[in-house]
Amino acid sequence: MTSEDKILLALTGWDPDVWQAEFSKTAPNRQLVVDPDSDRANIRYALVWKQKPGSLQNLPNLEVIFSLGAGVDHVFHDPHIPDVPIVRIVSPDLTMRMSEYVVWQVLDHHRLGLRYRQQQSQRIWHEDRRQAAAHEVTVGILGLGVLGRDAAQKLRMLGFRVSGWSRRLQTIEGVTTHYGQDGLKDFLKDVDIIVCLLPLTPDTRNILSMSMFAQLKSEGPLGAPVLINAGRGGLQNEVDIVAALERGMLSAVTLDVFNQEPLPKDSPLWKHPQVVITPHAAASSSPQALVPEIVAQMEAYERGEKLRNIVDKAAQY
Amino acid sequence: MTSEDKILLALTGWDPDVWQAEFSKTAPNRQLVVDPDSDRANIRYALVWKQKPGSLQNLPNLEVIFSLGAGVDHVFHDPHIPDVPIVRIVSPDLTMRMSEYVVWQVLDHHRLGLRYRQQQSQRIWHEDRRQAAAHEVTVGILGLGVLGRDAAQKLRMLGFRVSGWSRRLQTIEGVTTHYGQDGLKDFLKDVDIIVCLLPLTPDTRNILSMSMFAQLKSEGPLGAPVLINAGRGGLQNEVDIVAALERGMLSAVTLDVFNQEPLPKDSPLWKHPQVVITPHAAASSSPQALVPEIVAQMEAYERGEKLRNIVDKAAQY
Repeated sequence: MTSEDKILLALTGWDPDVWQAEFSKTAPNRQLVVDPDSDRANIRYALVWKQKPGSLQNLPNLEVIFSLGAGVDHVFHDPHIPDVPIVRIVSPDLTMRMSEYVVWQVLDHHRLGLRYRQQQSQRIWHEDRRQAAAHEVTVGILGLGVLGRDAAQKLRMLGFRVSGWSRRLQTIEGVTTHYGQDGLKDFLKDVDIIVCLLPLTPDTRNILSMSMFAQLKSEGPLGAPVLINAGRGGLQNEVDIVAALERGMLSAVTLDVFNQEPLPKDSPLWKHPQVVITPHAAASSSPQALVPEIVAQMEAYERGEKLRNIVDKAAQY
Repeated sequence: MTSEDKILLALTGWDPDVWQAEFSKTAPNRQLVVDPDSDRANIRYALVWKQKPGSLQNLPNLEVIFSLGAGVDHVFHDPHIPDVPIVRIVSPDLTMRMSEYVVWQVLDHHRLGLRYRQQQSQRIWHEDRRQAAAHEVTVGILGLGVLGRDAAQKLRMLGFRVSGWSRRLQTIEGVTTHYGQDGLKDFLKDVDIIVCLLPLTPDTRNILSMSMFAQLKSEGPLGAPVLINAGRGGLQNEVDIVAALERGMLSAVTLDVFNQEPLPKDSPLWKHPQVVITPHAAASSSPQALVPEIVAQMEAYERGEKLRNIVDKAAQY
């Protein structure tokens, strides 16, 4: 690193100040700028979250783009991405938060949270004695990257049967895995609770739609399967989700992500009794946790080590 | 066992038929009766849940009482308990269900479930970016028996700091433990989420009251500490809990158990915005899981082996 090197912070919707503050604590020698025009020639790195399209153009010395979220689809909304490596965040902090969210929501459905909250609101005391044991419930995870694998392990430890599906074959001890288009049907026919942690790519867009729901079984410990999407809103067809709930193809859903965020006020999802909504809060990037990891990556890169967690631009994840 | 031996089923509030059905599958040679008068002289065992006081008297050949719940306080409501061993249920099924409940409710508070559900009901999209990491949160478990230890282990695996308190010193790897009256103060001053899994005994009755809440810290990741009681209603003073919520000494509570069950319709707990109520459903005895274990205990006893998990009648647990 030279003293002239600068880091461009290209964020939409996030406060740059907290990132600046964390860098000035962790790496006070590194200069961050939010306006590329201030010093185009010296910008060596870019940290991005939903960067404005075109904002990474005309940076002649840009070497690496770091995405600040677990998913990188937001980077590709920009048709003018320079041809430099894009590094994805793989952070123990993010992984732990995502697994918390998955375990929380799986247990909330498994332990009849929606029903007991509705009863509480009506002062009704009634224990549902059909409560299944965890080993009678199959939680199926769509997407077996770092996040999916960690969630699978924690769900197993709680006693659930766990299955998984991914684009390419993955093996995880104690987990039944399926892969590819052919494997999806087998995955779907046995699952009681689907947890979606897929990346959003041209291949996965709209995957959570009626054609998938039609392949689910029509019974199970919770009446019908439950869907939890903590991946990206673009993975889901929200009209189909409401229809599947109405037809009893899904018994309940938890959605942390939506096609349009914030979720529009007129969405029927808000008030549906079988829908749990959280505001894209499953696993938020904490600058306190992420900045030291990004700085460590920059230092390793400057020592000549290979960048880790580089995004495959063809697959877009 | 002789063919004359009978098992008395002395239950209040539970359906005896499901237990009968499970015995006829698992041990068709063992005869269950619900009316002791039918054959007093041949009753060798009693299976009890809140037996009617006096209902175990005048059973000259009773050898063992099996309690069908994790707690045994219900047995001691009866002043006329014959002087035979009382065996408590220690079942992997019950333990797993209780840990599910504890993890579910700890995560529900940690991940701001009450806030996000309230926002959903008002169609409000707002992520609370102060979401703490698990390692910044201390979950303290009151009671370190089989249930408390299993919950502690699972909470650690999710990344929480875990502490514990019990009557006598217990050591658990990675868990800060305290014991006895003197240790309670140290336990209380550091805890963010209290999980109560104590047995109800003359020593623990009413322990969750203002004198305990006054020793808690007044800040923390959730504003003030959270209380989760999945033990027994008699452990808690419900007037004090409401007062502690009003004064901000507790930020929220989850209660599965109450002094009077069902919880009376006029209890202020039902509609308090910071209270989660479940109908004594944290860890219900499943006849499918428990009957094989009870039958195995009977068979071992009849082979001359020692009974396991015998209740200490002086301590009443």
